[in-house]
Amino acid sequence: MSQSNEDAAVVPDTIRTAVASIMPPDRQWEAHAADRQALLTMPPGSLGRLLELGRQLAGLQQTDRPEGHPALIAVFAADHGVAGEGVSAYPSEVTGQMVANYLRGGAAVNVLARRAGATVRVADLGVTHWPAEVESHEALVRCPIAPGTANLLHGAAMSRADAFRAFDTGLNLADRWIGEDGPRVVALGEMGIGNSTTAAALIAALTGTSATDVVGRGTGVDDRGLVRKRDVVAQAVRRHTSNLRDDWDCFARLGGFEILGLAGLAIGAAKRRALVVLDGLISTCAGLVAVRICPPVRDYLVAAHRGTEPGHRVALAALGLMPLLNLDLRLGEGTGAALALPLIASAGDILRDMATFDSAGVSGPSSSSGHA
Amino acid sequence: MSQSNEDAAVVPDTIRTAVASIMPPDRQWEAHAADRQALLTMPPGSLGRLLELGRQLAGLQQTDRPEGHPALIAVFAADHGVAGEGVSAYPSEVTGQMVANYLRGGAAVNVLARRAGATVRVADLGVTHWPAEVESHEALVRCPIAPGTANLLHGAAMSRADAFRAFDTGLNLADRWIGEDGPRVVALGEMGIGNSTTAAALIAALTGTSATDVVGRGTGVDDRGLVRKRDVVAQAVRRHTSNLRDDWDCFARLGGFEILGLAGLAIGAAKRRALVVLDGLISTCAGLVAVRICPPVRDYLVAAHRGTEPGHRVALAALGLMPLLNLDLRLGEGTGAALALPLIASAGDILRDMATFDSAGVSGPSSSSGHA
Repeated sequence: MSQSNEDAAVVPDTIRTAVASIMPPDRQWEAHAADRQALLTMPPGSLGRLLELGRQLAGLQQTDRPEGHPALIAVFAADHGVAGEGVSAYPSEVTGQMVANYLRGGAAVNVLARRAGATVRVADLGVTHWPAEVESHEALVRCPIAPGTANLLHGAAMSRADAFRAFDTGLNLADRWIGEDGPRVVALGEMGIGNSTTAAALIAALTGTSATDVVGRGTGVDDRGLVRKRDVVAQAVRRHTSNLRDDWDCFARLGGFEILGLAGLAIGAAKRRALVVLDGLISTCAGLVAVRICPPVRDYLVAAHRGTEPGHRVALAALGLMPLLNLDLRLGEGTGAALALPLIASAGDILRDMATFDSAGVSGPSSSSGHA
Repeated sequence: MSQSNEDAAVVPDTIRTAVASIMPPDRQWEAHAADRQALLTMPPGSLGRLLELGRQLAGLQQTDRPEGHPALIAVFAADHGVAGEGVSAYPSEVTGQMVANYLRGGAAVNVLARRAGATVRVADLGVTHWPAEVESHEALVRCPIAPGTANLLHGAAMSRADAFRAFDTGLNLADRWIGEDGPRVVALGEMGIGNSTTAAALIAALTGTSATDVVGRGTGVDDRGLVRKRDVVAQAVRRHTSNLRDDWDCFARLGGFEILGLAGLAIGAAKRRALVVLDGLISTCAGLVAVRICPPVRDYLVAAHRGTEPGHRVALAALGLMPLLNLDLRLGEGTGAALALPLIASAGDILRDMATFDSAGVSGPSSSSGHA
């Protein structure tokens, strides 16, 4: 299924076109939303970051009455050759087993999505061990690039051609899932045993951060596993960051199919002017990749939470994003993003549904607050 | 309506009985919930503070399948004599006007409550300017102690007898609103022009913090108003914190009817084993008062958010509570609490609805994470 690197030196036109189509949010509608917020029955600015979120939605949707819902949580699953290096607490079989769990609705992301009124969709970008019981399901799309990446410790994780294909898969899924009247909010979720190693390596390479500062315990490796994981990331970054033609060389050598797919999904969502919600380490790494490919996407992103993985914090800082929640999460799947969805929906509601001082007959501030 | 202080030296039996009835949460059910959380299909502990919340609900409800909903947001409204000192950006008329806005559903707390699926109820504990158009409403209870407190700069804000009555009103409303099958979660909201001055003074007095460190801009006083507000709080604390017989002297001299009412509501909610959600400065001040009256109530509380008011942070620190959200809110009304309700509901959902490793056929951790 893979082509050699030589075959794919040039970024395909489909990707170039999609990237070129992303415009910055509409600053005029952001300003109109700010004007409207000033009329609502509360002291100016008193809902803090919820008002910022409302203005962001307004800029994307080009209205001062934006919608912060409905939301789609896209869970992209793929396996990682590096998982064989003992960098994860769980065996690779768990990737496919968890996909089955998502489709049955029993995982954390399903439970949180139900509470938030969000839809969960799952895409197989390259799961190695596919569970026999999972045939087809309306919430599942199977579009594997390959049955897992190669081990980045011994060579490139994937060819450039496969990196383009994974990204393009995400772009296409955005078109398919968002369409014209689709979700206004798209959350990036993922599953892939070994992917906290992959994401840490990518974040280290893209931000110039040392392995020690990006590697955490992921799903919970023990002390010995943590040392091994740091060593693997340091070696991989050393090996793969010389003689790069462009960022795509870095994405291909150190990446994961789900990470590149989510980066494509983010850009596809921005094309549809949807808000893109980043979750944990891997999801935020995908956001970083998306912004490297297409800088204007930055203003379509919102960071749901700051988790405990050190690489997550490094990626958030590189993106200049301030997370909404700080709940010491480290699960991934899209769980942190799911927990942020009600805040995002509320940010739209405030602009749509609150009374104004005028309409409610509420007095404004006294002419001088010193003489109320 | 008021009795003299001499008439009310002793804390009434109704209050003593209610306070004595509050038991600590059930630590055994907290442990059972932790055991169950370890079986769910996620790496142990990976939902961080959401799991803590789940264990707290389990301890209150004495089950490892607790419910984090339905929720009630109780907005207690009252006026403050100190508002005449120019410490607020808004005139006192706004208290009653906003009550009318709550009853019409147009305020921020209504909008956020609808998104969270919560009920809003309003109690008049002492609104000075009652809007002519508000007669009766199913969501409104009128139980004013007096038409606003006295100016704490020139004397006690209220008598001890009125402090007891305000507290008792909250206790009774908890019984009325929670009953046997009522809300599992009660959020403390408030409205009262001038109450950020009252709350700052109470927090300063109860925690021994200086006026400079507890006073903020509230709804948004200008620089001159801020200087005045600090001066008022410093004077009031100096005046009212000597010769205290007990904390109730402090509550009466510096308090507000809505603050004491909410403290009573918190203890009444704890009696019904409901979770009590603190919102901003004034609501958290009410939580602090409740814990001073009844220390076991501390473990029934959850702090929804850390706002921008300095006194809010001081009160949270005194309570030892780590807030769930950090969104730079400073509105009050119960808005921050409303935004935290979906997180609380989700914490219950996780314990109730997630699949276990066994039931989902998902492999557990590798025997040694160094050799996965």
